[in-house]
Amino acid sequence: MSVEAKAHAWLAAQEGPLRARLYDLVRIPSVSTDPAHAGDIARAADFLAEYLAAIGFAHVTINPTPGHPILTGEWLGAPGAPTVLVYGHYDVQPPAPLEQWHSDPFEPVLRDGRIYARGISDDKGPLMAALGGIEALMAASGRLPVNVRLLIEGSEELGSAHLEDFVTANQDRVAADFLLSADGAMWRADLPSVTVASRGMAALNVTLRGTAKDLHSGRYGGGVPNAAQVLVGMLAALHDPQTGAVAVPGFYDGVVPPDPETRAALAAIPFDEAGFLAGLGAKSGTGEAGYSFLERNWLRPTLEINGMESGYTDPGFKTVIGAVATAKISCRLVPGQDPHRILALLEAELTRLCPDHARVAFERKPGVAWPSALRLDHPGLLLAMEVLQELYGQPARAVRMGATIPIAEMFERVMGMGTVFFSFSTADEDYHAPNEFFRKERWRDGMRAWASYLARLAEKDLGHE
Amino acid sequence: MSVEAKAHAWLAAQEGPLRARLYDLVRIPSVSTDPAHAGDIARAADFLAEYLAAIGFAHVTINPTPGHPILTGEWLGAPGAPTVLVYGHYDVQPPAPLEQWHSDPFEPVLRDGRIYARGISDDKGPLMAALGGIEALMAASGRLPVNVRLLIEGSEELGSAHLEDFVTANQDRVAADFLLSADGAMWRADLPSVTVASRGMAALNVTLRGTAKDLHSGRYGGGVPNAAQVLVGMLAALHDPQTGAVAVPGFYDGVVPPDPETRAALAAIPFDEAGFLAGLGAKSGTGEAGYSFLERNWLRPTLEINGMESGYTDPGFKTVIGAVATAKISCRLVPGQDPHRILALLEAELTRLCPDHARVAFERKPGVAWPSALRLDHPGLLLAMEVLQELYGQPARAVRMGATIPIAEMFERVMGMGTVFFSFSTADEDYHAPNEFFRKERWRDGMRAWASYLARLAEKDLGHE
Repeated sequence: MSVEAKAHAWLAAQEGPLRARLYDLVRIPSVSTDPAHAGDIARAADFLAEYLAAIGFAHVTINPTPGHPILTGEWLGAPGAPTVLVYGHYDVQPPAPLEQWHSDPFEPVLRDGRIYARGISDDKGPLMAALGGIEALMAASGRLPVNVRLLIEGSEELGSAHLEDFVTANQDRVAADFLLSADGAMWRADLPSVTVASRGMAALNVTLRGTAKDLHSGRYGGGVPNAAQVLVGMLAALHDPQTGAVAVPGFYDGVVPPDPETRAALAAIPFDEAGFLAGLGAKSGTGEAGYSFLERNWLRPTLEINGMESGYTDPGFKTVIGAVATAKISCRLVPGQDPHRILALLEAELTRLCPDHARVAFERKPGVAWPSALRLDHPGLLLAMEVLQELYGQPARAVRMGATIPIAEMFERVMGMGTVFFSFSTADEDYHAPNEFFRKERWRDGMRAWASYLARLAEKDLGHE
Repeated sequence: MSVEAKAHAWLAAQEGPLRARLYDLVRIPSVSTDPAHAGDIARAADFLAEYLAAIGFAHVTINPTPGHPILTGEWLGAPGAPTVLVYGHYDVQPPAPLEQWHSDPFEPVLRDGRIYARGISDDKGPLMAALGGIEALMAASGRLPVNVRLLIEGSEELGSAHLEDFVTANQDRVAADFLLSADGAMWRADLPSVTVASRGMAALNVTLRGTAKDLHSGRYGGGVPNAAQVLVGMLAALHDPQTGAVAVPGFYDGVVPPDPETRAALAAIPFDEAGFLAGLGAKSGTGEAGYSFLERNWLRPTLEINGMESGYTDPGFKTVIGAVATAKISCRLVPGQDPHRILALLEAELTRLCPDHARVAFERKPGVAWPSALRLDHPGLLLAMEVLQELYGQPARAVRMGATIPIAEMFERVMGMGTVFFSFSTADEDYHAPNEFFRKERWRDGMRAWASYLARLAEKDLGHE
């Protein structure tokens, strides 16, 4: 009997105690955004530290940060074998609005195969699935097939504040061949998938001034600059009306058009685009000509107006010429694009578009995000696809995200490490909302899959990853 | 000694009592916008009714309306001579903010040749100047040289609510050759002028919807309609970027380009365009190519964005795709343009500009205003210019307004009557603001000018005006 099979047998036998441990963790209301729960955050960190030590991890440490503590630990007893850094988080979103919950958010309840509780899907369930798989391997053979480092943070719901500082200052403690994340939900419940890429982001506030004060549109109108009018002309010119492409010169420099294989792989993903768009209340899709929705959202960069305002916006009418018009613009970026360079190009183009009779000013959003992508032949990724295909009896898909995944981007940038998302929650599980749930079957799947993954990883040649 | 000279002599002799009467009227806080002042409104109406009867007007009536009462009266003892309808109002703006007044707003104070009080410039001073001139003519000869009807309203600061209904229902009581208005300030203190035209107005709310709800710009961006982006494209297309002209098809149909004489007359008006624009904080003027500021504001129609809003507009950033974007648009209109037709053209063009992937909806501002213009050879206008030139020793100018003058527009539309503005207040006298004032000299000028005007009007042939 293989170690993998022994681990699976152990998981089946121990399901009761494993579930009790998961529930105990979920009962701790470790809400990171609310200072009143600082004690619960500490309890959750202690709870996990004890569990990790019990599994057999060494150097289990609760590292203080200016925010909530970061847990680390390691098992490095497999010299020559690959090393993975397992990532997860023990903090949860606040449960409000409480009145919309059908049961106590901090008392897990099983209904129709779903476990309901705050944090069960994001990320305590998937995290405990990963740790359960690791525990099973330990129980099956007294050791792990590969080297495992752990990084479990308590501020993920606060935007992982202080994580980058910690990683930068402790590179020797987090170094690994790649990061294996217990966080990051699968795209859809009906499709096994691994997220392999996310877009970067850069954003800008634009302020257009025409006059010193708002003016009466009768007494002055026709002969003075109207800030809103000037700004809409500038904003409209940022896209090519024929192709829907971004018209900022240089915007696409360095962007590699998707190759036929990538497009074919995307097209092969079962996806009801028309139904999806109808569900959003959109009459139809739109965007860069010649691309599908998934291509536009996953493969192509964008420039979007996130907000704009000028003049009188309350009910009724006021015949005013607004002195100022503002817009918030953000760009989602793909590999080949430098967020800082994109902001500079955008500012230059808006400056060029601003007519002589107006003044334009910019305020960049502090912080940018770089695009991140895992290469599609990454052995850690291929292994994840293999395990998922076996588990679900259908090919797993490499999917991308139109949004930004800060953790993948940061580890790629700071540590040069790729991230393999191996989470068993699903994007529809109402995390960040009332009645968050986790599919009980997925928790079981996750524990088995993590055991399989680590067992098989021992045989992979990761080269100089 | 002519009647005019006798009247002027009487005015000089009676200045004390005339000023006392003006001050008594100003001391009544007849604030029409505040129900707490209903009693003061009634007192002001009674005060004027007594004065009018004392002058010698017949049928002096305080006509109730659903708002504040309208005063009417007439002196029709000059058969065959012209008839004028004298217009003014006895209501005033609220005095707030009180703490910014340097003296009691309802206790007139003379400082440096200026009388300070709420309503002294708008419109009690100019109204009492008109009535003083009429009283002087009565005193000089026991009769008036022309027929005079009066219409003095109490809801001007409420947008002349109910005035149109009253006029429509009482056409026989207000019929005259033309309207002579004691309201409507002169443009500038350094330039005697008569306002001869105002622009009309029509306004529209535009709502552009892309999706049912706001969406995350990462997860959806690139492939779904962005309402703000769609709307700026539509709004930008409403002007020709080369000429600055309105690009709505049919917008200029029926608009007669200004003839060389009109342009020459405008160009001859002393006006420091660069200094004026700099005073507004504008880097430079803008608008329809080939026109001066005064031409753009007085002679040409406009389309202005008065407000717009979409998505996230608070401080900071939120990566959202707004489901809805709104804009408020108004057009200022010149003779030849029908406000209802302009709204229909604008809606048709915006509908055409709206792409298939979005939905556009409209809400018209209730009520429109038509442009109004007095013909430049109107005998009542020429007489006003003559009297002003004599009084001030420099040619008076026929000036226009970029804004709407509801009273002129309404009398032209309902009664087919032109309006001659013969007011002696000036646009710089802080009406509607703290420390409203009226130049004492202008009050004296006004009484003399009104006496001269009516005396000389008797000799004018108004034809079938």
